[in-house]
Amino acid sequence: MPRDTEPARGAPSEDEHTPIDVVAVGNALVDVLGSATDEDLVRLGLVKGTMALVDLERSRAIYETMGPTVEASGGSAANTAAGIAALGGQVAYLGHVADDGLGRAFIHDIRSIGVHFEPTPTAAAPDRTTGHCLVLVTEDAERTMATHLGVASDFSSADLYEAHLGATQILYLEGYLWDQPPAKAAMREAIEMAHAGDAAVALSLSDPFCVEHHQREFLDLLRGDVDLVFANDEEIAMLFGVQDLDAALAAVEETGVLAAITRGPAGCVVVTAQGSDAVPAAPVERVVDTTGAGDLFAAGFLYGITHGLSPREAAHLGGLCAAEVISHVGARPQSDLHELATRAGLAGDGGSARALPAENVTEA
Amino acid sequence: MPRDTEPARGAPSEDEHTPIDVVAVGNALVDVLGSATDEDLVRLGLVKGTMALVDLERSRAIYETMGPTVEASGGSAANTAAGIAALGGQVAYLGHVADDGLGRAFIHDIRSIGVHFEPTPTAAAPDRTTGHCLVLVTEDAERTMATHLGVASDFSSADLYEAHLGATQILYLEGYLWDQPPAKAAMREAIEMAHAGDAAVALSLSDPFCVEHHQREFLDLLRGDVDLVFANDEEIAMLFGVQDLDAALAAVEETGVLAAITRGPAGCVVVTAQGSDAVPAAPVERVVDTTGAGDLFAAGFLYGITHGLSPREAAHLGGLCAAEVISHVGARPQSDLHELATRAGLAGDGGSARALPAENVTEA
Repeated sequence: MPRDTEPARGAPSEDEHTPIDVVAVGNALVDVLGSATDEDLVRLGLVKGTMALVDLERSRAIYETMGPTVEASGGSAANTAAGIAALGGQVAYLGHVADDGLGRAFIHDIRSIGVHFEPTPTAAAPDRTTGHCLVLVTEDAERTMATHLGVASDFSSADLYEAHLGATQILYLEGYLWDQPPAKAAMREAIEMAHAGDAAVALSLSDPFCVEHHQREFLDLLRGDVDLVFANDEEIAMLFGVQDLDAALAAVEETGVLAAITRGPAGCVVVTAQGSDAVPAAPVERVVDTTGAGDLFAAGFLYGITHGLSPREAAHLGGLCAAEVISHVGARPQSDLHELATRAGLAGDGGSARALPAENVTEA
Repeated sequence: MPRDTEPARGAPSEDEHTPIDVVAVGNALVDVLGSATDEDLVRLGLVKGTMALVDLERSRAIYETMGPTVEASGGSAANTAAGIAALGGQVAYLGHVADDGLGRAFIHDIRSIGVHFEPTPTAAAPDRTTGHCLVLVTEDAERTMATHLGVASDFSSADLYEAHLGATQILYLEGYLWDQPPAKAAMREAIEMAHAGDAAVALSLSDPFCVEHHQREFLDLLRGDVDLVFANDEEIAMLFGVQDLDAALAAVEETGVLAAITRGPAGCVVVTAQGSDAVPAAPVERVVDTTGAGDLFAAGFLYGITHGLSPREAAHLGGLCAAEVISHVGARPQSDLHELATRAGLAGDGGSARALPAENVTEA
């Protein structure tokens, strides 16, 4: 694979004054996708539909049991950034890679779709590789992930690119980042920079295990620093320690935070200070691989609310983007999302000045 | 990506007496697949539908102009080997990789599908990488390739694994290999070993440019060492320096070699000493990416004739395998080909003693 790290086609010129719609921050990962059976998952001790962090040795051991794989850039927030760029938004990414084959592929792929990304890669070493996520796709299109973070876990305040953080409407954070102390410290710093620059802060809860590990911190964030939260029904119920969706929706409504709660084929619920609003899912001919569904939903939603759409319209666009990504293998869009949005009348106003509709950022 | 080179799941135990249906020899490549427009191809000076050999510098330059890519193991004969294994055949591969990320992925992928492969990788170095093929897929599903051979061009007689070559029914050679003198010398040696072991020799003409460069040698091979040839209509006409298919079929019939001539959506023609026999293509719902179509046709055909099918039945099976691979991105099968063959009544007798139906290996 080519080794160059020069800006690729679509890499925008680094004008410090480029207004950015969204800065997305996350673990920079390359996905290694292969098919698996339910029995494989049991044998490997993996819990279906979730993400497990594994060390390099275990990652290798799981890989050896996998059939043929395909490698493609991934990473939850990076997938979201790719989706926003494909929709035509101005988006920057912050994450950490190594100067190895996977890292160079990651940089190429995210820049080539038009995302601003100015990484400072770590020198490659046998035990310091670019993070990778083994994605085991079962016949029901569900994905189960084993992630070796590699140098993604070196993400620190040195990776905070101020020109982008100071010029964005929204700072979007992956919940997965809370697993590593230096990354968590960098997130806190990024939140301060965003607030100083009048940007809104969005958080994805990422994964049930993630919520289990960081419940208190996530709750504190929702009650203070965060203006917008993405979660699925399981994650939001776990966050508030309740059993059913209605109780979770009531709890999130009380925080005053704008929330987009995804429910797979049942669509999503948008929660504003005005209450809850269910939005149906977009139809999908054949679900092939659900990898990236939540990430692309977030892409459509974030693009929408930074381009003058209402939260309900933004949720519709999120559903369209999620439908595109689950109809093929891999977590990044393969179709022209901007055209998709335009056809649906959801391309927005081409750039709004306000980060979030003011009425949704009310106090609890 | 995991770095281990231990045998993967499905890697067969190396019993020297395992009878092999096919030993496939070729350039070991990892495909880097991305979409492109016709204008991109013109701008890059690439001829649509063909393969160009490029040096590392040019490979990097083309890669930088490409949008997001997906990496997956490829290589023409390796794709054929993967297809034969997926059909349930006993197949070995010979090719040369480096001990880098791409090389380890190549080894993992081909072994994990059940192909016998005992490589001796070259140490990795910045300018000695595993071969890779930039595959530019246009909207009409046609693929245009720019291959940097890397260490694949180091293939030599040291890579001829005797335990497999001495136990095979068929030796299958990629025409692409004739581009490198050491590989060509190794091919000659492999042909001698195959003949000594009573194996038949099959050759794929691979690409029109390949035929243009090696016309005389390929003709000599057909008139002496080769028992079975794979080509598309353009390649076979170019080989015999004729303008139309009928003239090409007459010319190939005269050589007495069994030939399978593919014609894309028009199906294929099987040429035996008894004449030409047209076989329709298998229906395809939506052609997504024609990468691997010829390789998988060869897989079905080779599996068929080593499992008791007639050449016509084998061509039917080849068509089914080609139809599977062009209905998704990537050059290796994603469905259970054995089940596909069984459903079509083309799974054969589970292992035949004779390499080729004797009546087809007649003298000219």
